[in-house]
Formats: sequence, C-alpha cells, structure tokens
Amino acid sequence: MTWTRRHLLDVEDFTSADLDLILDRAQQLAERPSGARPGPDSLPGHRVALLFAEPSTRTRLSFEIAARNLGAETFVLDPPASSMVKGETLADTARNLGAMGFGSLVIRHRRWGAPWVTARHFPGSVINAGDGAHAHPTQALLDLLTLRRALKADSLTGRKVVIVGDLLHSRVARSNIWTLTADGADVAVCGPAGLLRGFDVVARRLPGRLFVTDDLSAALAGADAVMALRIQRERMSGAALSVGEYVGRYRIDEARMALAGPAARFLHPGPINEGVEVTREVATGPRSLVLEQVRNGVPIRMAVLALLAATTRQEKRDESSERR
Amino acid sequence: MTWTRRHLLDVEDFTSADLDLILDRAQQLAERPSGARPGPDSLPGHRVALLFAEPSTRTRLSFEIAARNLGAETFVLDPPASSMVKGETLADTARNLGAMGFGSLVIRHRRWGAPWVTARHFPGSVINAGDGAHAHPTQALLDLLTLRRALKADSLTGRKVVIVGDLLHSRVARSNIWTLTADGADVAVCGPAGLLRGFDVVARRLPGRLFVTDDLSAALAGADAVMALRIQRERMSGAALSVGEYVGRYRIDEARMALAGPAARFLHPGPINEGVEVTREVATGPRSLVLEQVRNGVPIRMAVLALLAATTRQEKRDESSERR
Amino acid sequence: MTWTRRHLLDVEDFTSADLDLILDRAQQLAERPSGARPGPDSLPGHRVALLFAEPSTRTRLSFEIAARNLGAETFVLDPPASSMVKGETLADTARNLGAMGFGSLVIRHRRWGAPWVTARHFPGSVINAGDGAHAHPTQALLDLLTLRRALKADSLTGRKVVIVGDLLHSRVARSNIWTLTADGADVAVCGPAGLLRGFDVVARRLPGRLFVTDDLSAALAGADAVMALRIQRERMSGAALSVGEYVGRYRIDEARMALAGPAARFLHPGPINEGVEVTREVATGPRSLVLEQVRNGVPIRMAVLALLAATTRQEKRDESSERR
Repeated sequence: MTWTRRHLLDVEDFTSADLDLILDRAQQLAERPSGARPGPDSLPGHRVALLFAEPSTRTRLSFEIAARNLGAETFVLDPPASSMVKGETLADTARNLGAMGFGSLVIRHRRWGAPWVTARHFPGSVINAGDGAHAHPTQALLDLLTLRRALKADSLTGRKVVIVGDLLHSRVARSNIWTLTADGADVAVCGPAGLLRGFDVVARRLPGRLFVTDDLSAALAGADAVMALRIQRERMSGAALSVGEYVGRYRIDEARMALAGPAARFLHPGPINEGVEVTREVATGPRSLVLEQVRNGVPIRMAVLALLAATTRQEKRDESSERR
Repeated sequence: MTWTRRHLLDVEDFTSADLDLILDRAQQLAERPSGARPGPDSLPGHRVALLFAEPSTRTRLSFEIAARNLGAETFVLDPPASSMVKGETLADTARNLGAMGFGSLVIRHRRWGAPWVTARHFPGSVINAGDGAHAHPTQALLDLLTLRRALKADSLTGRKVVIVGDLLHSRVARSNIWTLTADGADVAVCGPAGLLRGFDVVARRLPGRLFVTDDLSAALAGADAVMALRIQRERMSGAALSVGEYVGRYRIDEARMALAGPAARFLHPGPINEGVEVTREVATGPRSLVLEQVRNGVPIRMAVLALLAATTRQEKRDESSERR
Repeated sequence: MTWTRRHLLDVEDFTSADLDLILDRAQQLAERPSGARPGPDSLPGHRVALLFAEPSTRTRLSFEIAARNLGAETFVLDPPASSMVKGETLADTARNLGAMGFGSLVIRHRRWGAPWVTARHFPGSVINAGDGAHAHPTQALLDLLTLRRALKADSLTGRKVVIVGDLLHSRVARSNIWTLTADGADVAVCGPAGLLRGFDVVARRLPGRLFVTDDLSAALAGADAVMALRIQRERMSGAALSVGEYVGRYRIDEARMALAGPAARFLHPGPINEGVEVTREVATGPRSLVLEQVRNGVPIRMAVLALLAATTRQEKRDESSERR
C-alpha cells in the first residue's frame, strides 16, 4: 500500500491500511534518537504555514515541533494581526501562500468546511487542525497511536472505547469515531441526551460498532479506555442539565473507572476542566494517558507532514515527466 | 554602478540605474534553484527584526521568507504585546534593537515618516514596509519586476500604466509613481476627483509623464497595465460618491480591460475587495498578475536585504581600516 | 564551585560565588566572535518555550536571541491566543510542554510565584523572566555584569548603588538588592515614602548594606551608580504625590547626577518615560549604561540557559547510571 492523498482533511473514509501506514511511520519517527534528522522523511526548504484562526497553543506547537524536526521551516500566521484573514477570502489566502512557495498549510478554523475551501486553492498540502465541531484528524490519529501503544496491540480489534462528555460540540469525538471503528474497536458515546444529538444518524452508518447512550454505567462496562471531553458552562444550554448535575451523573472518577475493565485507561484531548468532566485523581493518576497523547502528537504530525509532502513531490515528478 | 544606500525608506529619488541594480539581483535570486543558499548574498548570523505596527501578514511573511532564504535569523516583534511599541519611543526601540545586534529592521507603521525617525537611531539598515499613506518601496519594486517580466522587457520605456482607485490613501500608488516613471513608463492615475487630491502637485514634478484624470475610459486607452487599488467603504467620504457609484464608474471588469491594449495586464497590491474595485473574472483571469506580484515579493526583498547588508558591512570595514 | 541549580526562579539566596560563575560564563560568551557557535555550551535540538503572559518584547527577544545563539530552538507561546494560558492551569501547561520535549521554559507572569508553581510540574528548567512585582533574576544579573564591566571591577565591594523611583512595584529593584549586596555593594533605595513600603523589612535582613530613604540628595552622595525605575501615572496613588511633584523631587538630571561621584553611571531597566524619572540628557548621555544593559542581556541569558541545561543533562546521566 502506498500513500496517495495530498491533503488531510478528514478521517471519515480511512481504512485500517491507511491507519497502519501513518501509525507505523509515526512509530518509527517516535523511536528515532532525539535530535536526529530523519533521512528519507527530511523536508529541508519545505515551508509550513500555521494558520490558527481559533486559539490553540498546544496543537500549533505540536505541528511546529513536528515540522522543524523534519527540517522544514515554520511560519506562524497571526490571525488577529492578519490582513489575510480579515480582508481576504480563504481562497485568496490559500493562493497567496501558494505563490510564496508554501508546501504545507495547517489550518484551524471556526467554520466547518474551511479546510476544504482552502484545499481547492492551495497548490501544496492542507492539513485540517480542527474545523468547527466537525473534524480534528491528527487528534484522532494520535489518540489511536496512544491507545495502540498503551494496550501493546497492533490494532484495536475487540476493544471497547467510551467517549463521554459534550459530544455535540466535539470535533475530537467526530474524528475518533471513524478511526477507532476502522481500527476494529467498538465505541460508545455517552452523555446527557441533549449533547448526543445527531449521533444516532452516525450510529446507523456503523451498525453494531457505535453505541449511543445516556447511561454511563452501561457504557463503561467492559471498556478498555475512557475518553472524557471538555465541558464548557456556556455550551451546556443544550444539555438540559446544569454543570452540577453533569458532574453528579457523568464526571469520571475512580469509582466510575472501576466500572470499566481493571486495566482501563483514561484519555482527554485537553484542555481539561479539572473537577468538571474528570477528577484530578484520574486525570493525573496511573490510568491517565493524557501526557502520552501530548507526546504522541509530535510523531503523528511528523508522519502526516512527511507523507503528504511526498505525495506533492511525486505529483510534481509525474507532471514534469508527462511534459517530456 | 555600486550600491551605497544603507536604508530603503523611499524610492522617490531612485534612478533607472538603481532600479536595474535591484531588479537584476532579484532576477538572479528568483532563478536560483529553490532550497539553494545564495553564496555571496548569504547572511548567516544576520538578525532581522520585523516590526509591523499595522496588520499585514502577507508583507511580513514575504520579508520573513526572504530573510530566511538568505540564511538570516528573523524575529517577529508583536506590537500589541510589545512594550517597545507602547511604552517607548521609536528612537528607543531602534537603539535597543541595535544594542541587541540586529542588522536589519523592517518596519510598518501607521505614522508617515516613522521609518526615517527609526533610521536615525538604528545602527543597521531600516527598510520601510509601509508608512501611513506615504511610501511602500518594496511593493513598488516588486510591481516593477512583475511588469518587466510579464512584458518581457528590460525597462518600461514607452509603456503606459494606469493606477485606478483610492489614490488618496495609497502608499502603493505614491511609491509606484516614482519607480514606474523612472523606468520609462507613462503613468495615469484615475479615480473620483476627491480621491485624487494632491496628485496634481506630483504631476507638476513629472511633466508629460504623470497624468491625473477622473475619466477612466481616457486613462485606459492604450494602457499596457492596469493596477487597481483597494476601495474601503470607511474611506469613501472624501470621494463624494458611494461605493455603488464607484463600482458603476470605476470597477475594472473585462469590458473596461478591453479599452486598454489587447494584451494589457492587471495588477493589484492586495488584499482585493472582489466585486468592488475589480471583478473576480479579471482578478483571477489570464490577464491577472496578482499571484506573480506575490511571487516576486520574495526575490525583491532578498535583493534589498542583501544589498543593504552589504553596505553596512562595507561601512564597518571602512571604519576599521580608518582606525588603523 | 560547580553549578547544581535546575531552575532560575530568584536570586535572593545567591552567593558571590554563584554570581562569579554566571558572570564569568557570560563574559566569555560576550567575547566570542559574533556568529560563532559556542562549543561546550551549544544546545542543538534543545527546545526553549517563551511564555510571556505579560507584554515584553525586549526581554522576550533577548532570551530568543540567547537561545538561538546557543543553537537551541525557540517557540513563542502567544498568551492571548493560547488555550494553555486561558483554559488550563499553569501546572497542566508545564506538564504538557514537558511531554512535548521542551528543555527550558522562560516565563513571565503577572502573578507573584507563578514560576515556582510551573517549576514543580516541568521536567526541564524554568527561568523566571519576571513575576508580578516580585523578582526578575536575569535583569539583576545583567545589571551586575554591566556595572562590573563599566567599573572595570571583579566585584562591587566598596561601591554604592542608588535605586530611585517606584520601588513598590519593581521586581527589578527587589532582585537587584540581593545581587548587588551579595557582590559587595551598598545599596540605597530612594523615592517618596509611599513607594518604599516594605523595604524597611528587607533592610533589617541586610543591616548596614541596604539603606531606605526619601531624601535623594543624601542617597546620591558618593554613589558609583544610579538606577532609575519607571514611573507610571496610574501607579502613583500610593505615592501621595503627583507626577509633577515626583519630577520636581526625584527626577534624575545632570545636576542630581553631579551629587553622586564624578564618574557615576546611570542605569535604567527600561522602558524609559523620558522626562519623568530621568531627563533625556542623562538617559542618552555619556554616563548612561542603558544600551550596555540591553547588550549584556544576551550573554547573561546565554549563560543562564547553558548552565541550567547542563544541570538537567547531568541529572539524566545520573538517573541512567543509577538504573544500571
């Protein structure tokens, strides 16, 4: 199997072979000695634009480290001080960055679908670093790498993962559902009914693989991993219950983790509202994979940048041989 | 002819020999293989400060890419979070950056003349990246390079360029007038009379070379290139006509481009207000040089940084040989 | 004497041997030819995070230059656009940066003590770049280096330094008191009584070394150096006098400098409010060391980064040999 995608916009159609290819590459990159420049994946002179129209230091830093580890050059576009974002369309921005010789464009945007618009006008690779509540592909990939490594497994076949919290506003959940099930896991999404709206439709596309429930105890039974999502007070209106009630019914604590398998692990995409969706005890305890998730973000993004750049370079080679 | 300027503040006094020198150097730099470090122009260890007190991602990125292409180190000064801008005078900022060993200072400032103040206190080279509505030298140089390359000409002698739009607020126009006429072109500036104020004075300094008119059809006749300028609703009060009326009388569309020469090209310094000063059809069509302008910004800024740094280094050599 | 600290949080307990070690290293780094990579202090692949939750371009740039001079990689965390700062605790931020492989974390924070909290959760070195009105260690170190070099002395034994201005809000003064007296100097702090609150307590810990007075003439008598601190109108309510009255009684001008020793030098941590706490004549005149302070900031921060990183690396070596 070879990699032929030019952009990473979504993971909805990823096969288990796609996942193996990225994760194996990331695993190799994670194991190389720190400071070493990777030979074949090296991207000297490759320019990476980081356009974060929504705040996110962690994801931006992770991409920036990944790109520089590959020998690429990173340029941070500051959106509040950016005529590209204010005065131009995304299409113009994408074309201008292309004209300046950028090879990769990492974009986070409040608007669902913004990376697709960008990709239509950008001559290099576009990587979706989160669009609205829609998709966050690299987060799903790093979560999968984290789970495979923690469970010492080549795939998640026969495993069960519970995602609990504000599903409604979560691009992390929406991307994880596809990668986790494609890798063989059963997934349960759980929370107050008002925060699960729309997931019944997704469940119909994944029969017997995706379960939607507001009953946390049922969801947790036999789970290998529990992923909690951030709860934001200002987004709880759709939940028809208060934050206090949420805490009482859904906060992940040691007692609830005990309902899952004895070796069940805890994940969270961050930033964590400690004491709301999870107790500090669980978030920083021995079951927690939170720092492993952060750690694995770098090799995943290195693998993605390297694979996509290889496609673009191959396309250019094909074009120039066609011309002859 | 050798280059002896230390700063690039304005292009008002540039001769055709000055222009040839910069543009030839830029042309050489544009043609070198991507990723290659330019030998004699290389600036390792040279520190470039980017002080953009007005928003501009595109120009800042272009300078940043140019400086890094030369092997220099770039430092972005963030003005909103900058005590240098808020609490200090520009003179203090310039002296402090000098003490930190910066060799080049690229400055954009809302205040007309700010780069001159800065240059008086900075020991290296100051490059004006746009001061108020006054000057934008590197934009004028990249526009000239774009036109020469598109017209496959060594100079613009005998050519005609029309600049249309909000001339009143345009530093791009004010710089282009000098470089275009110095390179041999005739220039017509065109727009509602209220947005042409002051240009009659400039025209008297360029008799038979600069034409000021509110009649677009007359201006366009026989033009080799049409440059549209951004129209901003909030600046139209001086125009004594509405944006709607502006569109009716001055928006560049295919029909109006047809009034110019059959091979006439379209330029715009960006960001474009599509549908206002130009139709999308023209802006992204085959006559458009907009992306070529963005592309040529990088080698122009490389040439400027390299030429100015060479002067500073020569001055230092002269000083140390005088001391002996 | 060898260096065993992992963090630079405060200078309150620094001995004269500590100061010699840092300043000698900084002196060596200052004297190396520009552009040269320092052999043993080199930090290739070392990641430095710059987290400035309060505005400061000058200090941030100085650290950024210092880190890059050592071959380290710098990453600027933008706090307004930073979920790390808004949505997370400092502890979470520190742990996440550790997981991303950062070796050094330079932090400026409005909150007194923030660097200590950070250090408890960060696996590398934390450097306090200013916390509230509490401490600013590298500023005190660069001030000491500047004074030693200007006075051509190996220590400040027998010297007298006057610090005048808004002591109440000054982390610079609070750090300088410890380093100056540890290096042998007598220190007088001077200003309106309301801006000296709390310094009597410190004076009791430094008997015969620290003098607190509102009488500027008495303070200046025989001083080798005068350091003025920034006066901010909005902070003068505690002073029980107006800015105009402050200027009349405390502004440093040539006449007042003449009350100090004939060769007395002037320092200021910047940014300067020219005409308020000091006249332009003194600030930019031959007695002024203001630009020397800026210049010496770079080698001081190089020395600090290199010494702390060496400790971390030694700890890792010790851990891995214990494991065997």
